[in-house]
Amino acid sequence: MIRPPSADAYAAARERLAALAKPTGALGRLEDAAAWVASCQGESPPRPLDRVRLTVLAGDHGVSHAGVSAYPREVTGAMVAAMVAGGSGANVLARQHGVAMQVLDVGVDGDLAALPAAVRRHHLRRSSGAIDREDALTPDEVRTALDTGGRIAAEEIDAGADLLLLGDLGIGNTTPAAALVAATFGVGAEEVTGRGTGVDDAALARKTHVVAAALSRSAVRVSDPVERLAALGSVDLAAGVGFLVAAARAGVPVLLDGIVTVAELAVAEDLEPGVVAWCAAGHRSTEPAQQLALDKLGLVPLLDLGLRLGEGTGALTALPVLRSAVLLLREMALLADLAPAG
Amino acid sequence: MIRPPSADAYAAARERLAALAKPTGALGRLEDAAAWVASCQGESPPRPLDRVRLTVLAGDHGVSHAGVSAYPREVTGAMVAAMVAGGSGANVLARQHGVAMQVLDVGVDGDLAALPAAVRRHHLRRSSGAIDREDALTPDEVRTALDTGGRIAAEEIDAGADLLLLGDLGIGNTTPAAALVAATFGVGAEEVTGRGTGVDDAALARKTHVVAAALSRSAVRVSDPVERLAALGSVDLAAGVGFLVAAARAGVPVLLDGIVTVAELAVAEDLEPGVVAWCAAGHRSTEPAQQLALDKLGLVPLLDLGLRLGEGTGALTALPVLRSAVLLLREMALLADLAPAG
Repeated sequence: MIRPPSADAYAAARERLAALAKPTGALGRLEDAAAWVASCQGESPPRPLDRVRLTVLAGDHGVSHAGVSAYPREVTGAMVAAMVAGGSGANVLARQHGVAMQVLDVGVDGDLAALPAAVRRHHLRRSSGAIDREDALTPDEVRTALDTGGRIAAEEIDAGADLLLLGDLGIGNTTPAAALVAATFGVGAEEVTGRGTGVDDAALARKTHVVAAALSRSAVRVSDPVERLAALGSVDLAAGVGFLVAAARAGVPVLLDGIVTVAELAVAEDLEPGVVAWCAAGHRSTEPAQQLALDKLGLVPLLDLGLRLGEGTGALTALPVLRSAVLLLREMALLADLAPAG
Repeated sequence: MIRPPSADAYAAARERLAALAKPTGALGRLEDAAAWVASCQGESPPRPLDRVRLTVLAGDHGVSHAGVSAYPREVTGAMVAAMVAGGSGANVLARQHGVAMQVLDVGVDGDLAALPAAVRRHHLRRSSGAIDREDALTPDEVRTALDTGGRIAAEEIDAGADLLLLGDLGIGNTTPAAALVAATFGVGAEEVTGRGTGVDDAALARKTHVVAAALSRSAVRVSDPVERLAALGSVDLAAGVGFLVAAARAGVPVLLDGIVTVAELAVAEDLEPGVVAWCAAGHRSTEPAQQLALDKLGLVPLLDLGLRLGEGTGALTALPVLRSAVLLLREMALLADLAPAG
């Protein structure tokens, strides 16, 4: 059972928001965001979100051989290398916002020995099973990945974090993410399958077929979240689930990214109810499964810019908005302090 | 005639966006924003938006005696003082983002002699006429206010600005702004009148009646933008129009805020076609006139957070998103530079 954020701090934040020198509710959804941060920290006004850390979990996916992506599998490793070199979109935004970021090869199907050992320190396996034909993982592998994700979150929290960001990297990863969302919420493949990196109509049809086949193959087992990850997920998705559960257990808020992290939350919430209360949605992506899962989870994203890059870029773009919410709650004058003017 | 932003730089930016190490279009509307900044600067990639300046134009409005706001007129001067003291929402966000900000009393109906003289150096008159019963200004006063707004923009540009932000402050100002939008686009009072600071149903009905009376009183004259500002505007709104025209003439882009600045743009575009090409919309406010004018002007706001504070807070909240767009275009690796991975 996950401890919920503080209702007292939430109420105190709402009271302070109502007392600020502004019309009631004039900060719109920034008021909701500020109160959420206060509730997570257990104090109002909350501390500024100075110490923010992003982990990008990288992995390959068996389904990438089925023509579900616009890119070949080799791009995953190349993008991990680009991220280590500082040239990815996530690097650019992390520098802009002073976010400490790391990319971890959890399940890349390539030899990344040329990269720093730290990138590979949580490597679990090369790729995961092609979910239209076989399970992604064994249940034991799922449990190991959940533990690994939990250890990654613990490392981040030990390093000092007011807020954690989670991102993903891996050709093919929107396919298992869509399948997990469909299985979690009991909807069909057509409702969750999107264009990912931007596939054409033929590839979208293949991808929808892959998701449908995966759901059909595993239908009877997936009510259990561990079985669901084994049948439909991947090692990086399972690690992401473990990361979110551990952050919520530790009471550290998380700002989510796109379809992959939202699918991870959907499973995490089944695994340990209450995780969602520690998560905020950074942005609405173009993936239908992300929008469906956000609605089901009751999360309203801060941004809606049509981003579909992954890597945590949606969370990073939303970060200054969340920081604004906190700073406004902390620093604005109170109505009672306004001087009467002549 | 306003010179348009550079089509060559726009095309070069689009070409570079397509060559970045990401799927085509994966940065969504950030790609549009980045290309717009490049076109305004006439170079791709564009310079970072390091030097950003916000001017908040303050003024009172005759209609505030008609019960159209949740606050009395005296709040305008008190909020100017709070802004000078650094306690307004705009101050908080300007500090967060390193924005140089100033508030200018253009038309406040109060004695602000206790405030620094710089705040009053462009003061033109105390309040403006109650537009349901009389003209806001004479045409000569409009021309003086347009010139003053132009001089304010010129000062800001001389100080060094990659981007200008414009904000507003003044009890009652959403009423003339709504009237200007209605007159500009030929729609009725019910379509443009909103709750402003958050008035109740009775005050909303009064406000709608005030807008309708103003439109009815001035209908035959308002096809001319100067006459429109004289009949329906205010001295601070006219100065805002002059500010936007001068920025566009100088080729300096502007990030807009809520209903007041968008109404100013609607009139500015009539006064000198082409201003809109130098403007981006920061956020969608809760005011129906702002949404209508944005649609008519063809602008899609970066944020939609339900903000309705004014002061430039919507533009300030959107600023880091616009900066992200520029940094991504500048700093992301090119697909051609990706190293093949093992």
